[in-house]
Amino acid sequence: MHTGTLYLVPTPLDFGCTHQVPLTECLPQKTIDMAATLSHWVCENAKSHRAFLKRINELSPLKTALQSQVMVELPREAHKKGDHQGAFNGKELLQVVLQGQDLGLACEAGMPAIADPGSSLVRAAHALGIQVRSLVGPNSLMLALSGSGMNGQNFSFVGYLPQAQEARLERVRYLDQWVRKSLQTQIFIETPYRNDSMLESLLQTLSAQTRLAVACGLGLESEHIESHLVEVWRARSIKPKLKDPCIFLLGI
Amino acid sequence: MHTGTLYLVPTPLDFGCTHQVPLTECLPQKTIDMAATLSHWVCENAKSHRAFLKRINELSPLKTALQSQVMVELPREAHKKGDHQGAFNGKELLQVVLQGQDLGLACEAGMPAIADPGSSLVRAAHALGIQVRSLVGPNSLMLALSGSGMNGQNFSFVGYLPQAQEARLERVRYLDQWVRKSLQTQIFIETPYRNDSMLESLLQTLSAQTRLAVACGLGLESEHIESHLVEVWRARSIKPKLKDPCIFLLGI
Repeated sequence: MHTGTLYLVPTPLDFGCTHQVPLTECLPQKTIDMAATLSHWVCENAKSHRAFLKRINELSPLKTALQSQVMVELPREAHKKGDHQGAFNGKELLQVVLQGQDLGLACEAGMPAIADPGSSLVRAAHALGIQVRSLVGPNSLMLALSGSGMNGQNFSFVGYLPQAQEARLERVRYLDQWVRKSLQTQIFIETPYRNDSMLESLLQTLSAQTRLAVACGLGLESEHIESHLVEVWRARSIKPKLKDPCIFLLGI
Repeated sequence: MHTGTLYLVPTPLDFGCTHQVPLTECLPQKTIDMAATLSHWVCENAKSHRAFLKRINELSPLKTALQSQVMVELPREAHKKGDHQGAFNGKELLQVVLQGQDLGLACEAGMPAIADPGSSLVRAAHALGIQVRSLVGPNSLMLALSGSGMNGQNFSFVGYLPQAQEARLERVRYLDQWVRKSLQTQIFIETPYRNDSMLESLLQTLSAQTRLAVACGLGLESEHIESHLVEVWRARSIKPKLKDPCIFLLGI
């Protein structure tokens, strides 16, 4: 029997934002057409995935009507702390692929399984010998890195920093020292309503000669990337308001 | 006077490959249209950049004829070991932007200034208060990471490993231990003609329970991603031939 393929389908970065961008701004035609072809999905959230497919349908008619599409949400345990520690058995979700069906994996914003769940499904596909294909789309981390002017030849993404104040400041001090020692750019994210307090913590704590970049609303009309030495940030009287999703970067 | 914008323009991943992919497979329409609008460029190599613009012109007619486009190559020192250490003064190249001209920055494959030179130009733009906008396009590192099934919530890109045999093996042993301790996926690259010997070194040196992924020819017709525990790789009698550009990933 012919085995299907697992397609990793990226989505726009405007999830949860008030203004939506046209899909042609962030997805190549091939990605749009492939998303329109698939009828079976594993997704982060079925409701937002249906909204994504409606936008696809406006540009490339869905081969299978929306109400006939099969969508399975990634199980809760894959959402919590990432699913890199074998949180669930992705093999069950891949039975349709072994039976010849192509399957799409999609998250709510950006490329699947990067700063988002889904990796355990991809691991399970490799274990079953299923072909995996990554489609091109936006990745906020790389858009931010490219636009930051920081070292793009040695960098880390470290996820979220701790929420508790003291633990967070300690982590910032550690990353600050590590950046200066290793020259490795450090990238991290925060939920939008904590962006302002994150910026405050960073400006309080970082070395004056460390470079800090903040990339907000990437791919949106309001996109804004700022990158300066901390001493320059400190001297500015007006700080940016960071209501959109932001990426923070530390470098030299 | 109205200041221009620095656009970071991604290019396809088929540079140096025998088979070219249609640009609609890897670039959103907005990226194609924006590339067609620009007339001033800083690029890695003028010859390959002209070839890229010819491909753009087939889909979206160039606003400025190819022979009238202004292209400046990134200086040699930015190519060598990255240009994150302030290798050259990008401010001179940005004078046209201060005079109102939009400028594109492009590398030969993928997103500019990621695993490629260009970051010093972006830093200089921020220092001059010039707006920087990242356009969406393919990034081989993220396509590989997404397709590897490895931890995408904590990862590093560490560039090239040392070429000398003993130093390389030592570095592999270090990364192997670091992956197992930190759970942080480690991503690195190699020039295609050394891919086979890299795979051999990895299979000799890594722990049996470390996960190794190899992503070859991303975005090409021949794209192939394999991800297995090292003990599984070792048990396979046929190893992939790695003639295309490859990304290597270590994880858990």
